[in-house]
Amino acid sequence: MQGQSQQQAYDRGITIFSPDGRLYQVEYAREAVKRGTASIGIRAADGVVLAVDKRIRSPLMERSSVEKLHKADDHIGIASAGHVADARQLIDFARRNAQINQLRFGEPIGVETLTKDVTDHIQQYTQIGGARPFGVALIIGGIDADGEPRLFETDPSGTPYEWKALAVGADRGEVRDYLEEHYDEGIDLDEAVGLALSALGSVNDDALRPEAVGLATVGVDDRAYSQLTDDEVEEHLVDLDLLADEDAADGDETTDDDATEE
Amino acid sequence: MQGQSQQQAYDRGITIFSPDGRLYQVEYAREAVKRGTASIGIRAADGVVLAVDKRIRSPLMERSSVEKLHKADDHIGIASAGHVADARQLIDFARRNAQINQLRFGEPIGVETLTKDVTDHIQQYTQIGGARPFGVALIIGGIDADGEPRLFETDPSGTPYEWKALAVGADRGEVRDYLEEHYDEGIDLDEAVGLALSALGSVNDDALRPEAVGLATVGVDDRAYSQLTDDEVEEHLVDLDLLADEDAADGDETTDDDATEE
Amino acid sequence: MQGQSQQQAYDRGITIFSPDGRLYQVEYAREAVKRGTASIGIRAADGVVLAVDKRIRSPLMERSSVEKLHKADDHIGIASAGHVADARQLIDFARRNAQINQLRFGEPIGVETLTKDVTDHIQQYTQIGGARPFGVALIIGGIDADGEPRLFETDPSGTPYEWKALAVGADRGEVRDYLEEHYDEGIDLDEAVGLALSALGSVNDDALRPEAVGLATVGVDDRAYSQLTDDEVEEHLVDLDLLADEDAADGDETTDDDATEE
Amino acid sequence: MQGQSQQQAYDRGITIFSPDGRLYQVEYAREAVKRGTASIGIRAADGVVLAVDKRIRSPLMERSSVEKLHKADDHIGIASAGHVADARQLIDFARRNAQINQLRFGEPIGVETLTKDVTDHIQQYTQIGGARPFGVALIIGGIDADGEPRLFETDPSGTPYEWKALAVGADRGEVRDYLEEHYDEGIDLDEAVGLALSALGSVNDDALRPEAVGLATVGVDDRAYSQLTDDEVEEHLVDLDLLADEDAADGDETTDDDATEE
Amino acid sequence: MQGQSQQQAYDRGITIFSPDGRLYQVEYAREAVKRGTASIGIRAADGVVLAVDKRIRSPLMERSSVEKLHKADDHIGIASAGHVADARQLIDFARRNAQINQLRFGEPIGVETLTKDVTDHIQQYTQIGGARPFGVALIIGGIDADGEPRLFETDPSGTPYEWKALAVGADRGEVRDYLEEHYDEGIDLDEAVGLALSALGSVNDDALRPEAVGLATVGVDDRAYSQLTDDEVEEHLVDLDLLADEDAADGDETTDDDATEE
Amino acid sequence: MQGQSQQQAYDRGITIFSPDGRLYQVEYAREAVKRGTASIGIRAADGVVLAVDKRIRSPLMERSSVEKLHKADDHIGIASAGHVADARQLIDFARRNAQINQLRFGEPIGVETLTKDVTDHIQQYTQIGGARPFGVALIIGGIDADGEPRLFETDPSGTPYEWKALAVGADRGEVRDYLEEHYDEGIDLDEAVGLALSALGSVNDDALRPEAVGLATVGVDDRAYSQLTDDEVEEHLVDLDLLADEDAADGDETTDDDATEE
Amino acid sequence: MQGQSQQQAYDRGITIFSPDGRLYQVEYAREAVKRGTASIGIRAADGVVLAVDKRIRSPLMERSSVEKLHKADDHIGIASAGHVADARQLIDFARRNAQINQLRFGEPIGVETLTKDVTDHIQQYTQIGGARPFGVALIIGGIDADGEPRLFETDPSGTPYEWKALAVGADRGEVRDYLEEHYDEGIDLDEAVGLALSALGSVNDDALRPEAVGLATVGVDDRAYSQLTDDEVEEHLVDLDLLADEDAADGDETTDDDATEE
Repeated sequence: MQGQSQQQAYDRGITIFSPDGRLYQVEYAREAVKRGTASIGIRAADGVVLAVDKRIRSPLMERSSVEKLHKADDHIGIASAGHVADARQLIDFARRNAQINQLRFGEPIGVETLTKDVTDHIQQYTQIGGARPFGVALIIGGIDADGEPRLFETDPSGTPYEWKALAVGADRGEVRDYLEEHYDEGIDLDEAVGLALSALGSVNDDALRPEAVGLATVGVDDRAYSQLTDDEVEEHLVDLDLLADEDAADGDETTDDDATEE
Repeated sequence: MQGQSQQQAYDRGITIFSPDGRLYQVEYAREAVKRGTASIGIRAADGVVLAVDKRIRSPLMERSSVEKLHKADDHIGIASAGHVADARQLIDFARRNAQINQLRFGEPIGVETLTKDVTDHIQQYTQIGGARPFGVALIIGGIDADGEPRLFETDPSGTPYEWKALAVGADRGEVRDYLEEHYDEGIDLDEAVGLALSALGSVNDDALRPEAVGLATVGVDDRAYSQLTDDEVEEHLVDLDLLADEDAADGDETTDDDATEE
Repeated sequence: MQGQSQQQAYDRGITIFSPDGRLYQVEYAREAVKRGTASIGIRAADGVVLAVDKRIRSPLMERSSVEKLHKADDHIGIASAGHVADARQLIDFARRNAQINQLRFGEPIGVETLTKDVTDHIQQYTQIGGARPFGVALIIGGIDADGEPRLFETDPSGTPYEWKALAVGADRGEVRDYLEEHYDEGIDLDEAVGLALSALGSVNDDALRPEAVGLATVGVDDRAYSQLTDDEVEEHLVDLDLLADEDAADGDETTDDDATEE
Repeated sequence: MQGQSQQQAYDRGITIFSPDGRLYQVEYAREAVKRGTASIGIRAADGVVLAVDKRIRSPLMERSSVEKLHKADDHIGIASAGHVADARQLIDFARRNAQINQLRFGEPIGVETLTKDVTDHIQQYTQIGGARPFGVALIIGGIDADGEPRLFETDPSGTPYEWKALAVGADRGEVRDYLEEHYDEGIDLDEAVGLALSALGSVNDDALRPEAVGLATVGVDDRAYSQLTDDEVEEHLVDLDLLADEDAADGDETTDDDATEE
Repeated sequence: MQGQSQQQAYDRGITIFSPDGRLYQVEYAREAVKRGTASIGIRAADGVVLAVDKRIRSPLMERSSVEKLHKADDHIGIASAGHVADARQLIDFARRNAQINQLRFGEPIGVETLTKDVTDHIQQYTQIGGARPFGVALIIGGIDADGEPRLFETDPSGTPYEWKALAVGADRGEVRDYLEEHYDEGIDLDEAVGLALSALGSVNDDALRPEAVGLATVGVDDRAYSQLTDDEVEEHLVDLDLLADEDAADGDETTDDDATEE
Repeated sequence: MQGQSQQQAYDRGITIFSPDGRLYQVEYAREAVKRGTASIGIRAADGVVLAVDKRIRSPLMERSSVEKLHKADDHIGIASAGHVADARQLIDFARRNAQINQLRFGEPIGVETLTKDVTDHIQQYTQIGGARPFGVALIIGGIDADGEPRLFETDPSGTPYEWKALAVGADRGEVRDYLEEHYDEGIDLDEAVGLALSALGSVNDDALRPEAVGLATVGVDDRAYSQLTDDEVEEHLVDLDLLADEDAADGDETTDDDATEE
Repeated sequence: MQGQSQQQAYDRGITIFSPDGRLYQVEYAREAVKRGTASIGIRAADGVVLAVDKRIRSPLMERSSVEKLHKADDHIGIASAGHVADARQLIDFARRNAQINQLRFGEPIGVETLTKDVTDHIQQYTQIGGARPFGVALIIGGIDADGEPRLFETDPSGTPYEWKALAVGADRGEVRDYLEEHYDEGIDLDEAVGLALSALGSVNDDALRPEAVGLATVGVDDRAYSQLTDDEVEEHLVDLDLLADEDAADGDETTDDDATEE
């Protein structure tokens, strides 16, 4: 009881510390991320893979409008999890910064540079009053000018992390355990696509519908972001023995009528 | 008891997260949408249909002043549900953006572009302090430059969704069930008008007065928004065996004297 | 008990939603409207009539200072009910907009255009923080450029409604019932004046003093707002057998010493 | 008990409505007016009279510093009641507006115009946040360009009222009853001075000291504001048999050591 | 109990009225004035006298740093009581206004004009949010252009009062009683100095040290503010039989270690 | 109990008065001063001495970083006690003002002028909302243009005091008692240095380490601020028989790990 | 109980003092620092060493993204502990100031100057409302123009401290004890690297993995910041007999899934 009311005292003020040095609003924003379906990023030797869970709440909804995979620049893709409307703001911010960098320096923005532009922007919303933090986590993956694949995470506190492979959103813990067990640094892009799908499958009864999965890659060779078609995804699923029955396709999984997290 | 007082602690602050990562003010704004009468959008192969429930609270009120169908541009219509005064603000915003796009690029704005202009505007009211969210949902339907009919929803969180067919406002759940059961992607515009009316009828004892229904279409052929006359609606209702007795016409349904939701 | 304290939690913040999607401050502003005496508007085939209850709290007060009838432009009149000082702000706003329209476009402002200018202004005070809503309702009546009589209501939420006949302020419900029973769309301006007076009489023991009533018309023929003199009103009252004794004239009805609603 | 705590909930916020549509801060500002001593205004056929109670709290205080009668322009006087420092702000505002009108239009400002300039200014302090309402009521009396004497009241809500005769401040109710009983519209300026004094006397044991009364008139003939001397007041008091003993003169009546209302 | 919590409800908000029309913050600021030692002003036929209690809290403190007498202009002096740092702000404000008046109009500022400049400034801090009232009272004394000695008080509400003789600060009531008993309007400047000292003595066991008293005069003849030296004060004290023993001089009276009121 | 909760009601608002006319935030800022170690100022006939307690919390900390003695201008030094970061702001403010004075008037700033510049700056933080008061006290000592040594104190309320000798910070009361007993106005600078050290010693078991003491003087002859070296301090300590054992030197006294007051 | 609720009253307001003169928000920000892993700074005769604990929460995370060592300028390095996103803001601020100094004065910024630029920036966030303090401590080490190695700490209050050797973050107390025992002012840079590692080891069971440690030095000879490679670190660990088994390397220590402190 006591702990509860004490906690309430601190989380009402947007940008203040609790006695143990935590920022509750930031931690609650992380809960908003967990309310969204999972997104996965994997770095291979020759590129990066982004995979997202595109479950929809009605068969009448267009899956393409479940925006979880975004092209930030020719050579950088972003996967999001959490509050959709907030994600759109950050994606727009990232795209503008990528364009400005191209205009100003005549070269594509670095993946780390873009990530830190975004996290610095996020941090402002955790320190200055008059606004709430962003309720979204991003996976930013791309290829640097030197041909290196890079994979970053931004979280609601505005901290940038670099990963070999990671998951954000619902079931984050389980998917990360799966990745830690199966990831190998030497894998190639194709194997990474397979790992991403089997990781997603591991928290979906090992059965996925191609249209309920979003997959994008940025390869080292062409430094180009590209999203896979449903057919390409299906091929992978067949190969991985993860293809679900058609029946599961309509009005799949989410039950919350008003969900704005994905 | 405990849950209740805990909830109160979070919904007083406009733009902050609750411990489970929800934004109560946005969820309450969704309740404002549900207080409004239903609006329906259906995408056909050759156009989109918007249908609205125009019930009035007194026979002395002009039905034409129940503004739920709006022309945003020649090729885009919008149906709204929820807080009427808020809807007007968003419609004005959408119209201005459509005009600016025409002026700046010399071509009609895309349906998705317009939708995302609106949802980005809505999102600001959920993150920056000093204002409340918009208590309204919009259905934005139109024809893109490539001749594709498109149908979107904006909700109070500022998330854009694309649909084949959808309902917002009161009885949203029942109407959606009806649509899911009867919608077929191959239907033409005329069949879509019929489906919209029968869906509206399904939550009105299968009986509608022509003047209590608003109907608008945007066809692929002429890319032109047009509202149906009462006579045209009546013809459809007769065809569908949904025409109600004249008696039901006056002071129809709403009992709340001060309703500002429609 | 529970309901009460819960309600208190939401109505203190100016511009936020309650869990059931209502804006309490707007609803309380409607109560301020009901604290004012009644105003009536009726649309006839050849014009509109505005009628107001001008009861005063002391025989020493000048009835002419009970400002409930306002000329907004040559062809548009406004009747108000509720918080008087707020009404003055909106009337000034309306007059300025009418003048600006004349200057900018060289033609009189449309009745609906003017109404929506006003309601959009009102809406801002319900969404942006730092101010309270307007505690007043307006009846805006006039003749459009095409000779059509139009009659609108603005309420504290900023919603515009068009009516054939309506009442705002105290006894709104009873007057509306009376109007619904006796109104006929074909009536001419003279009959509409009679209907307005008998409607007012219906909630005043069927007896009115000419000086306690304000009456104004805008006719289709001359498109000119004009207020009736006490003698003209008395003639109507005699015709309608509604003329009250002289005794009733002084310090008529209102008992609240500090009333600022009319 | 319940009513009390409920009331507290609404009067802390400056500019919000209570559930029954009242603005508590405005009503409390009216209480501040009642804490001041009475001021009276009477309109005669040939001018207006302003009379104020100038009781002081110590014989060492200069009565002339009890500012309750103010010349706003050559042809307009103002009597105030309530919070003195607030009154000074409004008087300054009125004087500036009178001067601006003279400069801009080359003619003296109308009494009603000036009153409404002031009340519109007052209204702003009841709707926009960040300030409290004015705790003062003004009686504004003068002669219009057409030679008509006019007499207005401004109250803390910002509502303008026109009166034949009125009282504001302490004992307002009793003085008004006296005025309603004895006022006659045909009285001339001299009789109006007598009525004002006897009305003041009626709530002062029918005995007044000349120096404890302030009297000013604006006559129709010269359209000039002029204050009466103590000798002139004494003459009137002798005529009316209202002259008090000299003993009553020092440290007359007010006991509150820190009174800032007059 | 009830009264207490009710009071708390109103004094937390800076600029709002209590239900009985009082401004608590202003009244608490008056308490800050009473926490300061007394200051006295007396108007004689040929000038004004300002006298202040200059008690210090340690013999190591320089009495000259107890700033309670200030020269505002050549012909105007100011004595203060209450919060010292606040007094400095108002004295600076007064000096700037006196200089501006001299520059703009080429003549010394009137005493009443200066006083009202100051009180209007003070009033702003009681009505506009975001700041607290000034916790200080001033006695402003000087000679007008027509040779008239004038003596004013400003209080935390921003009300100007004119006095023949007055006291502010601690023991204000007792000193005023003494002044009411002994003041005579015909006294000359020298007698006024004596009256001021004996009034100060009346609340100090009729014994004063010259260095613990500040005395300044502005005479009608030279219109020049001048402070008396300790020797001149001592002469007066000897004459009045009010001179205290030397022993009383060190670390005199104030016991509060952190007093910032004087 | 009651007193406690009442107190809480007032100290949460930054700039408001309590019912007894106190400003709690200012008083709490004084507590922040007391949490710092002592600083002493003494005015001699031929200069001023500033002495500070430089205890450190670890032998690894550089004593020179314990900033309690500051050169404000060639002829003015400042000793601080309380919140270190706040002190830095005020020292910077003082230095800038000293430079501006030199630039603008071509002469060194007066000690009193500089002090009042600083206290007026401090006062603003106690009256205007949106910031807290400064938690620091300064001793400002120097030589005026006329060769007079001057010694001032600024406290968190923004009140300037002039002293012959004073102490601020921890043990302020005991040190002041010591100074009152031993101070003599005729002492020369060398004796003043001795008095400052023995006063510091009086609250340190009469034993001091040279490096734990900061000493600075401004002499009348050269009008130059100069800090004493550890060797010079040691000489004085030997002379005064106050030199402590070396053992006491490391990690001396402060136990609070996170102290930011000195 | 009582102490607890009293404390809550003060820490909710961002920038106000508690009755005992503390700033709770600043103290809670210090707790945020303690939640981060330890950072160490040591000043040698010929340079400074910065050492940080780079533990990661998953073997999939890139250690290089654990940003705790930063190059501020060629000759200055910074180690941080606490809230990572906040640290980034301060590092950016420091870098900009270093560049500006170079541009403006044509020479490298002094270590103390840079430190105080940063602490003054931090202080603003503890006094001005509308933002929270920075939850981070920095160790700023470098070589001054005169060849002197300097080592500073900034804490959340904005106080600058100079140290010979220090630790911030978790286990700060234990590491400081270790440093106090083993530090010698005469040590050279190589010995200082050893001391830093053994100090880190002392709170890690005397076993460290090279990749879990960050090490940087700025030497007096080349005045150049340089980070050590994992191999160089390993060499040192072998020399010090501190090398841990490989097993300990993956997913080392932190268990908190959402840690943003390091």
